[in-house]
Amino acid sequence: MDFDKILATRTSHIKASAIRELLKLAAMPGMISLGGGLPSPDSFPMELIPKLTDIVLKKYGSCALQYDRTEGFNPLRYALLDYLKGKGIEAELDNVYITSGSQGFLDAIGKLLISPGDYVAVEGPTYLAALQAFNAYEAKYVKIETDDEGLIPESLEEIIDNYPIKFAYTVPTFQNPSGKTIGLKRRQQIAEIIKKYDILLVEDDPYSALRYKGEELPSIQSMAQSNVIYASTFSKIFAPGLRVGFFVAPQQLGKWMVIVKQGVDLNTCTYAQALAAEYLLGGYVPGQVNKIIELYRPKLEAMITAVEKHFPDGCEFTKPDGGMFLWVKGPKGIDMEDIYNITIEKKVGFVPGKFFYPNPVDGIETMRLNFTNVSEEQIDQSIRIIGESIKEVMEHQLIV
Amino acid sequence: MDFDKILATRTSHIKASAIRELLKLAAMPGMISLGGGLPSPDSFPMELIPKLTDIVLKKYGSCALQYDRTEGFNPLRYALLDYLKGKGIEAELDNVYITSGSQGFLDAIGKLLISPGDYVAVEGPTYLAALQAFNAYEAKYVKIETDDEGLIPESLEEIIDNYPIKFAYTVPTFQNPSGKTIGLKRRQQIAEIIKKYDILLVEDDPYSALRYKGEELPSIQSMAQSNVIYASTFSKIFAPGLRVGFFVAPQQLGKWMVIVKQGVDLNTCTYAQALAAEYLLGGYVPGQVNKIIELYRPKLEAMITAVEKHFPDGCEFTKPDGGMFLWVKGPKGIDMEDIYNITIEKKVGFVPGKFFYPNPVDGIETMRLNFTNVSEEQIDQSIRIIGESIKEVMEHQLIV
Repeated sequence: MDFDKILATRTSHIKASAIRELLKLAAMPGMISLGGGLPSPDSFPMELIPKLTDIVLKKYGSCALQYDRTEGFNPLRYALLDYLKGKGIEAELDNVYITSGSQGFLDAIGKLLISPGDYVAVEGPTYLAALQAFNAYEAKYVKIETDDEGLIPESLEEIIDNYPIKFAYTVPTFQNPSGKTIGLKRRQQIAEIIKKYDILLVEDDPYSALRYKGEELPSIQSMAQSNVIYASTFSKIFAPGLRVGFFVAPQQLGKWMVIVKQGVDLNTCTYAQALAAEYLLGGYVPGQVNKIIELYRPKLEAMITAVEKHFPDGCEFTKPDGGMFLWVKGPKGIDMEDIYNITIEKKVGFVPGKFFYPNPVDGIETMRLNFTNVSEEQIDQSIRIIGESIKEVMEHQLIV
Repeated sequence: MDFDKILATRTSHIKASAIRELLKLAAMPGMISLGGGLPSPDSFPMELIPKLTDIVLKKYGSCALQYDRTEGFNPLRYALLDYLKGKGIEAELDNVYITSGSQGFLDAIGKLLISPGDYVAVEGPTYLAALQAFNAYEAKYVKIETDDEGLIPESLEEIIDNYPIKFAYTVPTFQNPSGKTIGLKRRQQIAEIIKKYDILLVEDDPYSALRYKGEELPSIQSMAQSNVIYASTFSKIFAPGLRVGFFVAPQQLGKWMVIVKQGVDLNTCTYAQALAAEYLLGGYVPGQVNKIIELYRPKLEAMITAVEKHFPDGCEFTKPDGGMFLWVKGPKGIDMEDIYNITIEKKVGFVPGKFFYPNPVDGIETMRLNFTNVSEEQIDQSIRIIGESIKEVMEHQLIV
């Protein structure tokens, strides 16, 4: 039968990720891909798994393999209270909930709050998978302006003044895709704004643990608890394949989220939650995070060096203190998808930045470069190829 | 802030499961609960976990902890092709997809197909969590009539004639909640009807492996491949806490489902999928299923015996050949929620059947009894208490 004729109206808003095809190409054998957002498999604590398995089976027995409450596996929720306290986030059990990865959180918050046509304020550029989650609920987007320090508070305030937004969404630290971090003063300003207008802010924080230099910054949640839902994940500090994320919310909002999540997956994989709980309780996070930092820091430095060396004048780029991405803005008139089409022939992939904007024309000249899943040699080689391709196109455009 | 004011319009359709509160009561210490739908933890193959862990780590290494394709972990999908063949379901890789439990499937199919106000045909009674999943997408329901042999094909055809349904939903084997099974002839009739009208049937089959007597029946999918999406799960044949389900669909529909699922959870827990793959490949299913059958069969028999002995005349009940539930219809005018309120005082819980109907008034006199998570002694004791409570109320009504 022809299934297209029975699709829901919302389905037209759910498109296959445009970058999916690009990433497939970039993942072909022989490619150097700066395109993905995958943590390096070298960073996974494989050696811990048998030990954690042993503890989980002894401690939780069949409970680790049984259905569990939608809120999350309680030993993990309790363990998270301590972990969060270490990050300056004060919470009680009824504020902490488990999701099936950060994506499970983004889906649930979209499903709970977004009616078709509702406005959501997002940074431009913003996290692509958040757009994908919210698109399914037929959100409209208003772009919050950003500069080198990320989200500009005045832009957020202006949007709140002019649009009846359901919530604002931000990745304040080492943002995906831009690598940008919102500074302390701006965090305080944002907290004041959302309190003043009584607006909900969704603070998505998968990367703050991956800080290679500089001082840790407090979450916006810690400055405006009643107006922020704070989300994070084990994907970057343990392993993404476990699909365990979590969020901190005011209790009223958390209860609603649980009701929504119940219809989506009943509960997040109990067994993965039990492994994550014992990973926290075993005190493995600091050592593991250090290992990841030691692994990623030289790659970030290598990429900054390579971009400075190989990219032509007129290219601006971020120099993040952590995370997984560098963001480049090329000279006016250069479409980075054209560059992609050239470099992919030379076996180098990346993601043209326009896909990270609610309105892609805003980001024609931009690109996202991931450095966590390539060697320093590959970084120099691939950045050289991309830089040369940009130069070629620039010269060609001058001649034309 | 007051979050109720920013909820999406759809959220009014997503209510906390009404039976959740009842089940919470029924789960209090000292209770005998026939209310839940949990597999017995005694049935979980705990002893296999260290062995499977070892194989998974050796065979897949860090891939088992990495993000993976939304379609599902390929070794698991390939292993399922063989498993499904053994159940008479012919499929290729592009027909088989993994979900985060059956619930993940129900959410995705609802999200993909149901626009607000769309009709879905469901058995009355039907699986509660399917209603919960579809409610979020603002479905309307048309009740397919059932008798002792489950869904009545003529009723389905009449509905198709009169309503523009998006799809029909059925649990054809050992249905939750009724324990009923659709016979071979009716399956053939249903297949003919959906082919004739070119209608999509969602065949949800979590229980068919749990057959304690009688002959296995072919799936409706095997009779009408182009018009059926067939879903099942590892929850009953391995362990529910892994949250691994799967479905078989025509490729066009499967591709859409993958796009939807991508926004919901990116992928189902890779690690749990790898364990499930090695569980299948190790050939553990038949032995495990036998173990479960040996465990549950005497409980089912004990419950049938107890209901025959303790329930008053005028109660009809199913005598299923498998599954996890018995279904009772009491005398006209008896509200099983009243009975619940009496038995819960006597430390016995069950689920009043009305919650399983799209329109609860259709099921006032019904109840669902689960037998998998209680001992034979507890079964006799609890059924006696429920039977006595029904008799009391009947006598009281006669006097009044």
